[in-house]
This record gives sequence, structure tokens and C-alpha cells, in this order.
Amino acid sequence: MSIAIKPNDRTAQSLFALCERLFPICRSITGDGVRQTLAILKEYIDLNIVEIPTGKAVLDWQVPKEWNVQDAWIKNSLGERVVDFQNNNLHLLNYSIPVHRKIDLAGLKKYLYTLPEQPDLIPYRTSYYKENWGFCLSHHQYEALEEDTYEVYIDSTLQAGHLTYGELYIPGIIKDEILFSTHICHPSLANDNLSGISVLTHLIQYLKSRKNKFSYRFIFIPGTIGSITWLEENQDQLQHIKGGLVASLLGDAGDFTYKKSRRDNTEMDFVVEQVLQKARVPYRIQNFIPYGYDERQFCSPGFDLPMGNLTRSQFGTYPEYHTSADNLALIRPEYLATSLAVYQGVVNAFEKNIFYQNLSPQGEPQLGRRGLYEAIGGNSDAKQLQMAMLWVLNYSDGAHSLAHIAHLSQLDYPLIEKASQLLESKSLLKKLG
Amino acid sequence: MSIAIKPNDRTAQSLFALCERLFPICRSITGDGVRQTLAILKEYIDLNIVEIPTGKAVLDWQVPKEWNVQDAWIKNSLGERVVDFQNNNLHLLNYSIPVHRKIDLAGLKKYLYTLPEQPDLIPYRTSYYKENWGFCLSHHQYEALEEDTYEVYIDSTLQAGHLTYGELYIPGIIKDEILFSTHICHPSLANDNLSGISVLTHLIQYLKSRKNKFSYRFIFIPGTIGSITWLEENQDQLQHIKGGLVASLLGDAGDFTYKKSRRDNTEMDFVVEQVLQKARVPYRIQNFIPYGYDERQFCSPGFDLPMGNLTRSQFGTYPEYHTSADNLALIRPEYLATSLAVYQGVVNAFEKNIFYQNLSPQGEPQLGRRGLYEAIGGNSDAKQLQMAMLWVLNYSDGAHSLAHIAHLSQLDYPLIEKASQLLESKSLLKKLG
Amino acid sequence: MSIAIKPNDRTAQSLFALCERLFPICRSITGDGVRQTLAILKEYIDLNIVEIPTGKAVLDWQVPKEWNVQDAWIKNSLGERVVDFQNNNLHLLNYSIPVHRKIDLAGLKKYLYTLPEQPDLIPYRTSYYKENWGFCLSHHQYEALEEDTYEVYIDSTLQAGHLTYGELYIPGIIKDEILFSTHICHPSLANDNLSGISVLTHLIQYLKSRKNKFSYRFIFIPGTIGSITWLEENQDQLQHIKGGLVASLLGDAGDFTYKKSRRDNTEMDFVVEQVLQKARVPYRIQNFIPYGYDERQFCSPGFDLPMGNLTRSQFGTYPEYHTSADNLALIRPEYLATSLAVYQGVVNAFEKNIFYQNLSPQGEPQLGRRGLYEAIGGNSDAKQLQMAMLWVLNYSDGAHSLAHIAHLSQLDYPLIEKASQLLESKSLLKKLG
Repeated sequence: MSIAIKPNDRTAQSLFALCERLFPICRSITGDGVRQTLAILKEYIDLNIVEIPTGKAVLDWQVPKEWNVQDAWIKNSLGERVVDFQNNNLHLLNYSIPVHRKIDLAGLKKYLYTLPEQPDLIPYRTSYYKENWGFCLSHHQYEALEEDTYEVYIDSTLQAGHLTYGELYIPGIIKDEILFSTHICHPSLANDNLSGISVLTHLIQYLKSRKNKFSYRFIFIPGTIGSITWLEENQDQLQHIKGGLVASLLGDAGDFTYKKSRRDNTEMDFVVEQVLQKARVPYRIQNFIPYGYDERQFCSPGFDLPMGNLTRSQFGTYPEYHTSADNLALIRPEYLATSLAVYQGVVNAFEKNIFYQNLSPQGEPQLGRRGLYEAIGGNSDAKQLQMAMLWVLNYSDGAHSLAHIAHLSQLDYPLIEKASQLLESKSLLKKLG
Repeated sequence: MSIAIKPNDRTAQSLFALCERLFPICRSITGDGVRQTLAILKEYIDLNIVEIPTGKAVLDWQVPKEWNVQDAWIKNSLGERVVDFQNNNLHLLNYSIPVHRKIDLAGLKKYLYTLPEQPDLIPYRTSYYKENWGFCLSHHQYEALEEDTYEVYIDSTLQAGHLTYGELYIPGIIKDEILFSTHICHPSLANDNLSGISVLTHLIQYLKSRKNKFSYRFIFIPGTIGSITWLEENQDQLQHIKGGLVASLLGDAGDFTYKKSRRDNTEMDFVVEQVLQKARVPYRIQNFIPYGYDERQFCSPGFDLPMGNLTRSQFGTYPEYHTSADNLALIRPEYLATSLAVYQGVVNAFEKNIFYQNLSPQGEPQLGRRGLYEAIGGNSDAKQLQMAMLWVLNYSDGAHSLAHIAHLSQLDYPLIEKASQLLESKSLLKKLG
Repeated sequence: MSIAIKPNDRTAQSLFALCERLFPICRSITGDGVRQTLAILKEYIDLNIVEIPTGKAVLDWQVPKEWNVQDAWIKNSLGERVVDFQNNNLHLLNYSIPVHRKIDLAGLKKYLYTLPEQPDLIPYRTSYYKENWGFCLSHHQYEALEEDTYEVYIDSTLQAGHLTYGELYIPGIIKDEILFSTHICHPSLANDNLSGISVLTHLIQYLKSRKNKFSYRFIFIPGTIGSITWLEENQDQLQHIKGGLVASLLGDAGDFTYKKSRRDNTEMDFVVEQVLQKARVPYRIQNFIPYGYDERQFCSPGFDLPMGNLTRSQFGTYPEYHTSADNLALIRPEYLATSLAVYQGVVNAFEKNIFYQNLSPQGEPQLGRRGLYEAIGGNSDAKQLQMAMLWVLNYSDGAHSLAHIAHLSQLDYPLIEKASQLLESKSLLKKLG
């Protein structure tokens, strides 16, 4: 798989179109924005919508009050809306309580958030767990505000309700499962994380269209509180998880970034390395750190799930991150499609990532007699497939998976797969487990 | 040991002379060429010749039919031999079945093998396990063939017989043994592997001339099928093998190459590293890969013997490999002699590679009182022998051999040996095992 | 802690002043020079003076005869003292037996030691364990000696007596102890090792002024025979030692050098790394080698204590080492004070180097509700303290100390400490052990 996708590729267009549809919605960790988002996804995939009531204890946390917003603005004394939520939902501090008051400029400034070093951009700010209100605006806009009496209006509700998330389970031949998680709590931000939502939605369509060995679980959850809630609700099921990825930041032009699981050298870590290598895309692999997205929760020491985080640019590392510049212009159809192809590659590699037992471990089995070896010996060219067969035979001792052997041999994973299939077809290997 | 051997060195001459004697013989994995080769070796060493009958099941394989050849040629319509086995036995595809027929140029070409990128050289090709016939020739010769009716003649036999190999066992004080293996199946190729045959023959003479601690076993076997046959025949004896080397490619000008055992960090691996370091020759050390010579069989997962492969240039990496240019001009007496010296070094290091127990492990023993320490202290020059004594004392805890301590300290192995002998002579160390 | 100490700092002056007081004394591994040295230290700290009699068996050694010297000189035939112990006690081969004789130049030269490559300097030489006499002088002085009859006079005694050392124990809340050791056997050499003596003396004052968790033991001992004697006398107590440092060479301008314990990756190794990193001083960290100072004894395989060696320039690596140029001009108050600060840092880090258990290991605990997290989310600036809290929470699984977590995260140790204290104050962590 060397991935080269054109912008007008049909899947690429579909991935981007879903981002476009979802972009205008004002999402948060709870509320109707999330419900609208999941409802749109339901047009694509048979999502199970779960509602968890406010106040429910989840691990160390509590499901918060539900937040909804109708409108929000700041008017000057002429009645002009100088900051308007209708223009960009990032203008409102996410989870702002309802407010209607007049305030002078000095008073107002205590409630304003800007990015002085990126004066054209509106920052994205939230206050989920401390009741507050505020507005976010560009620093240029902020500096243009004159002494005046301003009218501030936030038509929001913050009250008992629900936390909403979507879940979808695709049963496979075995109960061992792969978990994909993505966060759905960001308002009009494209790369972070409509890209992740769209890629997983299309990955589900891909998996649904066929029979799989592993079972797959997808969760579309608000960040942090969503994964904590889901973990609380599903503690009995976690032992089935044999690998997983937190999906996000998949639409920009950045190189792929894989952050390994806390356990290190899990099968998922071997698989992703091989897929990225095989995809011939620029990438980097990093050790686990306890910061980032929901892998923080999945890899907390009390769970320590074998999950990594696979993005393009990494969180916090690109200038548009958590600003109004993370918009539809930042992401591109072909980047989304390449990301999807990589995720499909991961799924396919995991499906085929078998532990084999060499049934003829004493010496090499005679490959030639089975048609697996060139008849005319002595040719000094390295025969890659034969090499792959030798690697698979030598390391199929019960301790090394195919992805692990690919990692050891530095041979391409498809070659290792092909070699193992050939060997299995000749009864030289037996699948384990 | 810093090795500097002159071409006219007597051992160097003897090593080369044996290669010269063996060069003209048309060897294969079976047949009279092997028998003639072993018969010549018997003039030097008391080899035990073993004959295993065709059809015998050996591990996953079967001993093949025996192949012998009297003559082979291609004549043009004028009756001129345009390709002639008598000129170079590489001209005949090794293991060719008997043929006598007329054929036009197009038909003939299906049976011809050349090296278009090395148009002056005859390739070496075999077809052991699929019945076939063919001729190998230089690409220039091939291109000069004109439209004509050719007469093809191969006077060979392929029928029930034996696989022949030589074995020699030198009992030592203990039954623990070191295994040296070399392949004897190549026809007129000098570096691959008359060099290995000659070096081991002389190494046997060296070991026979003295009393050894370890027992040594040497096997002169056809490649692949020979090691498989030998392993089949000797499965009960393998537990005595404490280390070993596959010897080949020992006569060319290339740097030494050591491919470690599959187990990694075995005593043989430590020993070879130290000998190469001490020899002050250029070398490289590589991790195990399941490709190469008969270490593929010895290190298969069902045996996993502590054996490496010690060559000069590595298989497949020099341009003359498996061509008519791997002839007596490629190898030189002094290179063979340096290789022999390195192999002797390995044997000597293994003989002395003792695990010691420090009998005074609490604090340093008082070396000065035993005459092991310079009397006038305070000199800041590093005293290498004293350093070696300190390393040996500190790490002789039962878990580290001398070769391992040499590896840790990066001190020369002879210094480590000398230090340990001094310490043992003063009853500060006790030999283990 | 970024250490910047001025020469006129009061502690710096005190450290240097102690070196100045001790400098003139002619010390050795036994004798009144050691007693005078310890008596001066007793003015600063409540040292317990231990006397072990000559002849006592200590591990593999024996306590040697006690050596004392009154005077020593070489006079020429004019009666002029051409070499005079009164000018510099390095002139006398340490442990010289009494001598009074006339000798010609050729005979005399057998007893003279010089440094031809550093012709201005007097070498430091000893002959503790072989009875001998001699003089050390500059090579220039040596070359100026003319043919003459010389009178040699050494007024020394070498007879049954004692080996003397100082010990001080500061009981802490727990019996687990940290051992600091320094050698006191060198005559007029400043960096090696009045610097170590002075730094440990001031470190004791520092620890005495407060309550400590760990117990601390300090030993001021002659090199080699002193540590061996102390180990013999204290074998029953060694199990309390949880870490330690051999202190020496702490007054020169060199970069800090830490030689790790033989065990490698002990808590002391993690702690020293973090302190040096935090101190923002140049440093290097080396693996254990069985050569150097008394860590040779403490890390011998029969004891294998978790102790390292923390110096500035390493032994044997600076040109003034073991010469008359290792004098008071080589060391500086501010260097001594920086070394003391680093040692204090080590103590403080060890005191706080706790193993914590995360009491909320499933998912991240809600830091915001406990006031530990910024209320306004979405700010992309890395919050170092929050990062430290996440690292501490994720790795406080019982297997990682704070120093180990600092090592993993590469975050500053004080930040890790502060994070852990905050988390503990909110009952999110429980101290282990």
C-alpha cells in the first residue's frame, strides 16, 4: 500500500462532506449539539445513542449538568452586535452560564479571551467544571473596543440533563475486540476533531461491509468525561480489548504521529509501525506520555489498555490548534482519505496479525518440494518472499506475532503476511490462539 | 595477537595449496566429487567418511539421488564444442539429468543461464530438487551464439546412491563440545568454499597437535541437505554443543563478518567479539538473520544451537560471489592464514573462557600482599593489568565469564586472561563448572 | 535550584577555610596526622573517633603498622638541605621507614621519584604495604643534583599502633540510612581530598540543624584500608544502607562527574541525575567501573551497596592530580560551595524521593474539582505543573519513585515533588513504605 489519493476521489469527497455538514454545530461535552452530531452520523452508521443522567458518579467524576445555548452577543451602546455567537460559535466561552447585563469596557475585559500572538484568530476556550461566562475574540477585535457601555447577552441553560455519546459494536468471529474512540465535544473546529469523527464513521462503513475476525467497538464521546463515563459503564467488558486507537487530528497536512501505548511494544504498537512503514508516508513514533487525548484515561494505571493515539499533526503542535483557524480550510479531502486508508490498514493488519507455530521447527522445512522455493538455486539476488518465509518460519515459535516478525526483520508487512499464508497453505504453520 | 602474515608463510602456503588441489574437482551435494574431496582431506586429517543412502528421511527432507557427471558440451553444426564442461565445470547446471539431443538456438536458450550485468562471468547454478538440465555461460558467449542446430550432450547419472560427508571428533577433557561446520558441495569455486574447507582442515591439525579441554567436532557437509542429514543423525548428541561456527568465505580480502547466534549474547558471541578485537583486523558484527549458510539449520527454532557464522566478506555481498570469478585468483595465502589465526584465536579463547568465582568477594582482596600490585602507590598512570584484575574480581560472581567481562570492560581479552590466571594462582578465584 | 555562588559567600568561605586549616598536616592512612585532622573536624561536628589496633584482621586485609614522621631531609656535602620535608610533606615517600645514611648520587637516585613530563611538580607517592623509603621531588630539582655525597635522614616510626577513623551517625525518623564516605589519608593535597572532607563536614552541620526522615552515616576514613576496616566492623549494619555516595574531588573547576552504582538504576542513581539536572551545572554520568575510590570496596560483589561516586573532575583526569599542584590554588570557595549545594540537593531529593500509590488509578482523578487544574480549558500552552501531576498520577503504581518518574518524564524534580505534594494534600496519593 503506497497511498496516493486525489482530491476528487469519491471517498475523499465523502469524508470532507461529512466534516462540512458537522462544522456549523455548536458542540460541547453535553447538550443538543452532540445530539445533532450523532443524529447526522446515524444517517451513515447504525449508532447506538446512550444518555447518562447528570449527577451520576463515574469513576472519580460526576456527569455534569447539561449545557445548551440559543444565542449570545455583546452589543455596544448603538445596539450593534460587536461580538456575535451567530457568526462563530467559538465567540462564546463554552459552558457559559446565562447572563444579561450592562457593563463598562473595563468590566467586560475580565470576561474576554484573546490570543495576542495570533491577533487575527479567535481562541477556543471552555469552562466545563467551574461556572463562568465569557467571550472569545480576535485580539484585533479586542483592541478596537472603545470605552462604552456594553450589553452582554447569553441565552444558555445549564441544568440537569444528560451526557450523550454514541457507540457501535461490530461483532466478529471472536470476542476479542479492537476499540476506536474519538471525541465529539468540540464546536466549529475542523481538524480537532471533525476529522476524527468522519474517519471513524467511514471506517465503520468499511468494516460493516465485510466479515471480520475481531469484534470492533467504536465510541463517539465527549473528551475526558466521556471516556471516564464509558469506562465506568463498561468495566466488565474491558478484558476483551486487545488493542485500540484514539483517533483525532486526521485532516491536516501534517506527518502521521503515533504515540505508543503505556505498556509499550504491544501488538497494536507493532501493527501501527508496520502500517505506517508500508504506507510510505512520513511518520514519527513516540513513547507514551500521560498527556494528550482520551488515551490519558484508557492508559491510566488502573486500566492500562493496549491503546495508542494515531494522529497527523500532534495536539498542540500546529499554529491553528484550538483557534478559529482550525476550520474547513485547514483540512483537505485527500488528507482525510489517506488517514482513513491508514486506519483501514491498521484494521487489516490486526486481522492478519496471527501468532503461528512452526510445525517443522527442526531445520528448515524443504520449501522447494512444496513449490515455495525457486528451482534454480545459486542466484545471488535476495529473494524477498523467500526471505520473509525464512523469517516467519524461524520466529514462529509462539512468542512472536507476524507484526513482531515484521518489526524484527524490517521487511514489509504484506510480504510477511503473504509468506505466512503460503506456509500455512502448505501445513508448515499452525495458527495459535 | 595482532596478525600480520606474509604470503610466503609456510602455513599460508599450505592453506592455499590445498585449495589449489581441490579446485578442479566438480563437486555437488552428492557424488564422486565429494568423495574425491574428502579423500584428499584424509591425507591431512583422519576423517570419518559417512555415507547415507538415497531416500532416507532426514528431518523434513529426503536424501536425494546421487549425481555424477562424466562430460557435457554443446556443439554447433560444425561439430565445435561452443560450451564445454571440460573447460569449466560451472558450465553445467549442477545436477543436470542426462541429455543427448539436437536443438535450434531458440530452443537451446531456454536452457542457458548467464549474468547480463557481468557479461564476462559464468554463473554458478544448481537444480538439486527439480529434475532439469542446462548450461551456464558468459553473456558475451551467449550473445555470440548464431542461428544453428546445436547438439547437446550431458553424460550424467542421477540415481540411487548416497550422500557423503566427513566428520572428525577430537575428544577433550570434557564432553562439552564446539562444533565447526563447513560446506563441501560447490564445484570450482575458491572462496566459497575451498577456503572454509582448507581453514578447518588446518584447524584440525592444530587442535590434534595438543590436548584440549573442550571436545571438538568438525563436519564437512554438503550445504543445507548435509546439515539437515547430520542433525537428523545426531539429535541425541546436540546437548553437548556449547558453541560453534559455520566456516566459509575465508580466503578473500574482505573484512571479517560475524553473524551472531539466534540466542544472542552466547559465550561464542562474546568470544568471537574479543578475538576479532584482539586480532586488530577490521570486522563487523551483525545480529542473527535466518538466511545465509548452515546456521539456518543449526539455529532453526527447534534446535537453536549457540552457533554463529564467521566469514570474511559475507555471502552474496562481493561481485565474484557464485560466479567463475570466485577462482584461485580471488583468494590469497595470507588471507587464508589470517582467517586460520582468527579461528585458532576463537578456539584458544573458548578454551580459556572460564567462569570464575571470586573467593574474596567482600571488598577487594589485598593484591599487594600477594605481589599483584605495584608497591609504590599514587602513580596516576592507568595500570592495565591491575585494571583487568579489578574487573575480573568484581564480576566473577558466577554470572559472568571472562569473555563477558572482556566485553563489559572493553579490555583486551589476553589481559583479562592473564589477570584471571594471576588471581587464580593466588587462590583468589576458583574455576566454576 | 540554579546554583550561582559568589566567592565571598559565607558558606563558601567556611568551606575553604577548613581546607586551609587542614592543608599543612602530613596525613597518611594511620598516625597522628589523621588524629589531628579528625580533632579539627571535631570542632565543627561531634565526630566519634574510632581506633583499630595494628594487626587486626579486616576482611582479606590486616590493619597495618602505624606511621608517624617528625622530619626528613636530604643534605648535600655542604650540609644544605636540598630536599626538605618541612617545605612540603609530599617530598617524603609516604610510609617511609626511618633512615639515616650517607649515599652517593647514583645510589640516591634509586630512592627518588619525579614527574619528567611535569618537571616543576612534586609527585605524591606512597608505599603503605611494602617497607621502603624514598623522596619525591620536581624533575628540575632532580636534574640539578650534582655528584656528591648526600646525607639522608628520615625521622619516622613504623610500629604497632592504630588505624584511626571518624564516624558520625545522625538518626532519622526511619532506620534506613544514607552513607557518605570520604578519604582522609592524603597529606598536603587540596582537591584530593580536603575538598571532600570539608564538604561532608558542612553537610553534617546542615543535616544536624534539622529533623530528617532518613538516618545518615558519615565516615571519614583512610582510603581502601579504611573502608575495608569499616566494612569489617559494620557488616551487621549494612542492610540499612539504601543509598550512598563516596565524596571526593569537590573543589576544582571541573564539571561534575557521577559514576553510577554497580547495580545501576538504583534510587541514588535516579536522585543524583535529577539533582545535577536541576542544578543547571555541566555534568556527565558514567557507568560503574571497579576502579576509583572506596566505591571499589562498597560495590565489591560481596557487598554490592547502592552507592555511587560524585566528584567534580574525576580521579586521574586532571593534570594536577596527585602532585604538588593539587594545592589551595586549585580549589576555590565557590566551587566547594556549589559542590555542597549539590550534596544538599541529593540529600533533599532522597528525603523526598517517595514511592506513592495513586489512590484513583482508574482514569484521571478530577483535578479541577480539587483546585488542581486551571478552570479555563482549551489553552494550548503546556502547563508544566499539570503535566507533572499527570506523570506522577500515571506512574505512581508502586513501581516508580518520584526520582524515577522525573527520569522518565525528564521534568524537573522540584516540579515532580510539588506535583506529588499537591496530589497528596488532596488524598489522591498515598505514601508507600
